[in-house]
Amino acid sequence: MTAPALAHTLRNPLPAAFVAALAAQFGARLSTAAAVCEQHGRDESPYPPMAPDAVVFAESTEDVVALVRLCAEHRVPLIPYGVGSSIEGHLLAVQGGVSVDLSRMNRVLAVNAEDLTVTVQAGVTRKQLNAEIKDTGLFFPIDPGADASLGGMAATRASGTNAVRYGTMRENVLALKVVTAEGQVIDTAGRSRKSSAGYDLTRVFVGSEGTLGVITEVTLRLYPQPEAISAATCSFPDVKAAVDTVIQTIQLGVPVARCELLDALTVRAVNLRDKLGLPEQPLLLFEFHGSAASVAEQAETVQAVAQEHGGADFKWTTKPEERTKLWEARHAAYFACLQLKPGCRSVTTDVCVPISRLAECIAQTIEDTNTSFLPAPILGHVGDGNFHCAILADPTKPEELEEAERLNRRIVERALALDGTCTGEHGVGLHKMDFLVQEHGADAVDLMARIKRAFDPLNILNPGKIVRAF
Amino acid sequence: MTAPALAHTLRNPLPAAFVAALAAQFGARLSTAAAVCEQHGRDESPYPPMAPDAVVFAESTEDVVALVRLCAEHRVPLIPYGVGSSIEGHLLAVQGGVSVDLSRMNRVLAVNAEDLTVTVQAGVTRKQLNAEIKDTGLFFPIDPGADASLGGMAATRASGTNAVRYGTMRENVLALKVVTAEGQVIDTAGRSRKSSAGYDLTRVFVGSEGTLGVITEVTLRLYPQPEAISAATCSFPDVKAAVDTVIQTIQLGVPVARCELLDALTVRAVNLRDKLGLPEQPLLLFEFHGSAASVAEQAETVQAVAQEHGGADFKWTTKPEERTKLWEARHAAYFACLQLKPGCRSVTTDVCVPISRLAECIAQTIEDTNTSFLPAPILGHVGDGNFHCAILADPTKPEELEEAERLNRRIVERALALDGTCTGEHGVGLHKMDFLVQEHGADAVDLMARIKRAFDPLNILNPGKIVRAF
Repeated sequence: MTAPALAHTLRNPLPAAFVAALAAQFGARLSTAAAVCEQHGRDESPYPPMAPDAVVFAESTEDVVALVRLCAEHRVPLIPYGVGSSIEGHLLAVQGGVSVDLSRMNRVLAVNAEDLTVTVQAGVTRKQLNAEIKDTGLFFPIDPGADASLGGMAATRASGTNAVRYGTMRENVLALKVVTAEGQVIDTAGRSRKSSAGYDLTRVFVGSEGTLGVITEVTLRLYPQPEAISAATCSFPDVKAAVDTVIQTIQLGVPVARCELLDALTVRAVNLRDKLGLPEQPLLLFEFHGSAASVAEQAETVQAVAQEHGGADFKWTTKPEERTKLWEARHAAYFACLQLKPGCRSVTTDVCVPISRLAECIAQTIEDTNTSFLPAPILGHVGDGNFHCAILADPTKPEELEEAERLNRRIVERALALDGTCTGEHGVGLHKMDFLVQEHGADAVDLMARIKRAFDPLNILNPGKIVRAF
Repeated sequence: MTAPALAHTLRNPLPAAFVAALAAQFGARLSTAAAVCEQHGRDESPYPPMAPDAVVFAESTEDVVALVRLCAEHRVPLIPYGVGSSIEGHLLAVQGGVSVDLSRMNRVLAVNAEDLTVTVQAGVTRKQLNAEIKDTGLFFPIDPGADASLGGMAATRASGTNAVRYGTMRENVLALKVVTAEGQVIDTAGRSRKSSAGYDLTRVFVGSEGTLGVITEVTLRLYPQPEAISAATCSFPDVKAAVDTVIQTIQLGVPVARCELLDALTVRAVNLRDKLGLPEQPLLLFEFHGSAASVAEQAETVQAVAQEHGGADFKWTTKPEERTKLWEARHAAYFACLQLKPGCRSVTTDVCVPISRLAECIAQTIEDTNTSFLPAPILGHVGDGNFHCAILADPTKPEELEEAERLNRRIVERALALDGTCTGEHGVGLHKMDFLVQEHGADAVDLMARIKRAFDPLNILNPGKIVRAF
């Protein structure tokens, strides 16, 4: 992927007075070392890094307030940074400025077990949270794969494998503490489970990718750890049979906790790397949460549905070690796919469509990629209608990046034609700003731009991302 | 309740040119008859009516576009109207203008059974929707009591008795068609179950109470009709024992579908009216959805939990006629309460707190109301931490309305101190604009005001509600 088109980019050196003020304010929490800046100007996207001019390691909401006020005074861009697991270029300092690293804000502030809520600083990661609350009998379900920070997950409206049961960050963030572009600290909501009190500021900031405010605390919903968990896998003659099984399962009201699809090429990739010996056909993987009786009943219901659709080799278990083994193909999939083409990076698509359109969407995508010179295995959160095509390209070869983008465009355009979205869970960042207009239309994106200008009139918060508002 | 303070109200007669243009555009769909205007200027709140100057019966999104453009041209206020079931003064024409009645936009446009979605015009009511989709095996769960329009329910972020299982309109609206203040038509999203594509315009409009745009179509999530339903009731020695039962039930992961509390006074009211002979103690009512085995298991689990907390007279059943009988007290409650004091109206509070604070919140509320000269029975959606205190006042007696407001203020202030909200599901309207500032703080409400000014710079959309932006 080539560097993004940055027609309106103005990259000025930081004003000397600003740097002096930063140093006075933050001391050793400020770094302008090239290696540190470089590390904060890249993410998991194939974009070449674009480093900020400085990094501030915030240790409190007050640090963020002080930084935002300095940035506002000197009109310097500010980019919030969690763990760097974005894959859409969110973190690239396209207009220079300061990266505010929130990873030291990593305290779990309050566990309210009776209310099934927890409040954390933005730098707490999801795995850290689940480790810290393990003894409460509760857990936080959203699992995007990476051990992302919860602030970052809120900022990109992340989800992952078990959104089909538990929802996304949209449904699971109860409240946020946010530093506004003018350095005010607001709480978007209290801790009640529901509220009709005014415009939904929480949902305005969830998915705003650092462009409307800096999230410093997140209050989340928790869930009781399931009494029992069962896992199941099943191979299918084609994608349609697999997706039809999922549709019917959901229509029957089976509360599936996870439901993932690997296409035949992805299964081949894990076989090649890990010698799993799986049939090289589309593979569905399920997980069920509930009482012992309920997870058995769920697995049996799905087995019956799968058989009706030609599913074969159905396996299920409740034993932890066997569950892990059944899901091994899924856990290994991403890195196994990368090994299909040594030295490549993945240009990862993220479309999401109504589930009734998913089978045709995936089947046509496979037809496209079969005629491409790039391998493009597919992994899907099929219970949600969301899938990723990992288009494997050599980042040193412009013709490969161009072909990857051509495929990506075709996949997005197809998803939009099927009443879907260009991004189910990764966000817009730099990569999908044009798709956003295609998806929502100019008038809707104009409303988004109005929100951006209203909240950040100086355009200092992660400028140049999501919408062109200035 | 006295008429709201309307310091900034300017009520001008409609410009003659505007009325002529309305008549030319809408013909018989326009009414300026006093009775029609009067009917559209009142709701279920105790506010005295404030009639609009005209009513337009819209039959299409194009009608709404034409009307909004005329209103923008002539700077005339416009108030969307569904069925008039608001209880916070949302519909009162405090600055005059035109009410746009959407009840004729009552078509179910598309049922997508495989995707569990439906798209309706804004005037479709929830009961109509469920009647029309009955044969699909699906249903729409949100039940605020009144047979409200789905556009109105989206506009107030409504919920009701089974939000504990299925969420509120926040979680169940997938997309909206909205006419903006400048007469553009936008679709806030596609039909995919999740999306990270830009700012969450859907959630900006859900709960915006007609102040940011006119909702003309709503796309909703549907759910499989449960295979089995069971109902249960149980009496408790005090509110704390009842609420503790609910907390423990939810922590055990029992997926309760409905969970309602009547306080002792409400039970007395239904006994008085309907001779139910219930123990005049706090009463919990449950409903469970699932497979036959699961609903039995859920009821048994709750019975065991209730017994630990001193619950007595536990009854449960799966038979439809017996379920209806068990829930009779709940269905009768509101009108039975009104009959405690003939000629009264109810000033209905709507606070919602974290469930761990609910028992103390309700107990202290009962202490307050016990020392008041107004009866104030309580009904609670306790699984959500939301309850309503129906303060019964004679609307012709200012001292009673004043006392009702004093109690209301105390209840709201207590809820805010407990990290809750002034309104769980009824919205802000006219009644809670000051509480909104108390709840969120001036800086957060300033962000709301920025959204209002950005979306509706001429302040023509339901002006004078939610926030003071101008």
